[in-house]
Amino acid sequence: MSDLEAFQEQIGYRFREVERLQEAMTHRSAGARHNERLEFLGDSVLNFVIAHEVFHRRLRDSEGTLSRLRANLVNRSSLAAIAREIDLGSHLRLGGGELKSGGHRRDSILADAMEAVFGAVYLDSDFDTAAQVITGLYRPRLESLPEEVVLKDPKTRLQEALQSTRRPLPGYQVLDVRGRAHHQKFRVECRLRDSDQATVGEAGSRRQAEQRAAQAMLLEIEAERPGDADG
Amino acid sequence: MSDLEAFQEQIGYRFREVERLQEAMTHRSAGARHNERLEFLGDSVLNFVIAHEVFHRRLRDSEGTLSRLRANLVNRSSLAAIAREIDLGSHLRLGGGELKSGGHRRDSILADAMEAVFGAVYLDSDFDTAAQVITGLYRPRLESLPEEVVLKDPKTRLQEALQSTRRPLPGYQVLDVRGRAHHQKFRVECRLRDSDQATVGEAGSRRQAEQRAAQAMLLEIEAERPGDADG
Repeated sequence: MSDLEAFQEQIGYRFREVERLQEAMTHRSAGARHNERLEFLGDSVLNFVIAHEVFHRRLRDSEGTLSRLRANLVNRSSLAAIAREIDLGSHLRLGGGELKSGGHRRDSILADAMEAVFGAVYLDSDFDTAAQVITGLYRPRLESLPEEVVLKDPKTRLQEALQSTRRPLPGYQVLDVRGRAHHQKFRVECRLRDSDQATVGEAGSRRQAEQRAAQAMLLEIEAERPGDADG
Repeated sequence: MSDLEAFQEQIGYRFREVERLQEAMTHRSAGARHNERLEFLGDSVLNFVIAHEVFHRRLRDSEGTLSRLRANLVNRSSLAAIAREIDLGSHLRLGGGELKSGGHRRDSILADAMEAVFGAVYLDSDFDTAAQVITGLYRPRLESLPEEVVLKDPKTRLQEALQSTRRPLPGYQVLDVRGRAHHQKFRVECRLRDSDQATVGEAGSRRQAEQRAAQAMLLEIEAERPGDADG
């Protein structure tokens, strides 16, 4: 086992029962007592703590903006980045296959374990302590929250993601519109031009439905990236 | 304004600043200071409190089961049911259009206001108090959590939802499979036979991808129901 003392120093919390931290570091490929239950708990405490933070830091912003701010902070890539900053990967317990294929550098495994660590801290202490650990690790990001104008919407981010890999821009098409006035539902398809991939978004306006379809496509593209290791 | 004293008695919490409760009761149709920010906050505290509860009540269950248990408790219909039990609808502030069309009986409006009330309690007090209010209102449901065997998966629930309105059963089709062994991604389409609606699910197994496509279709069907008032 690696030096969990140093890791506890990094996150600013010393475990009463270090077995909980060990469980948080154990990927399901490595054994029976793995980190997925702790990840479930940690995901929800993280979401709440970050919701609290953006709510109090952005008193004039709408629910939509708060949601986007939070989503930017708790998504896989932010979690993986924080995990890398505190060298979480070197403490991971992985099974043989994941070990050989570089699982300790993979975004998804790092992000899941980071959430599990938050869950383990909460379980080992209390809500206030978990909130302190989370806000401590998130401090630089919380203190530089983007302004709404630079907070990019899903269509913009999808366009940039495709351009960065020299792929053609997506097409959007309204599939149907239902319902009475003021209660209309638009369904819009987002389709990539160089593959058979399509996603559908639904909302009360065409613009919002396009954004949702783009968001779904972003998730698909993210899920596809082989290994998605970048660290 | 209706008798918010009685409502505070119902939820077992007396507000220091009752303006917060009033804000939680105000639908966006009724004015500038409406409940959507509080709903954002309340949704996240609710998700966390319920995650904590199912985590501790179901020590042997997998993350997947915990997620389904929680989803059953925090979905729109459970929240609206609790809102009806404490007569939340009679305290809602709605704009003219929503008032005329029976907005105070609509599931979506009730559920959103219920979440906003949880957010308002948290803002007015602290985490432990909000957790007490939430677990108090959820007590009967938490004490009768379904067993995994009766906890129905999305495909089953979609089938039942369609049958209840005499619609034909959906079809599932694998769109593509990508990636190396052990890292494969299945994309499965769920298509309704009496409309042009289709959703896509993606996961590491065909079975799981079908469930996700069914879940997406369930959300579409739920979003479509006109008014979805049932109380």
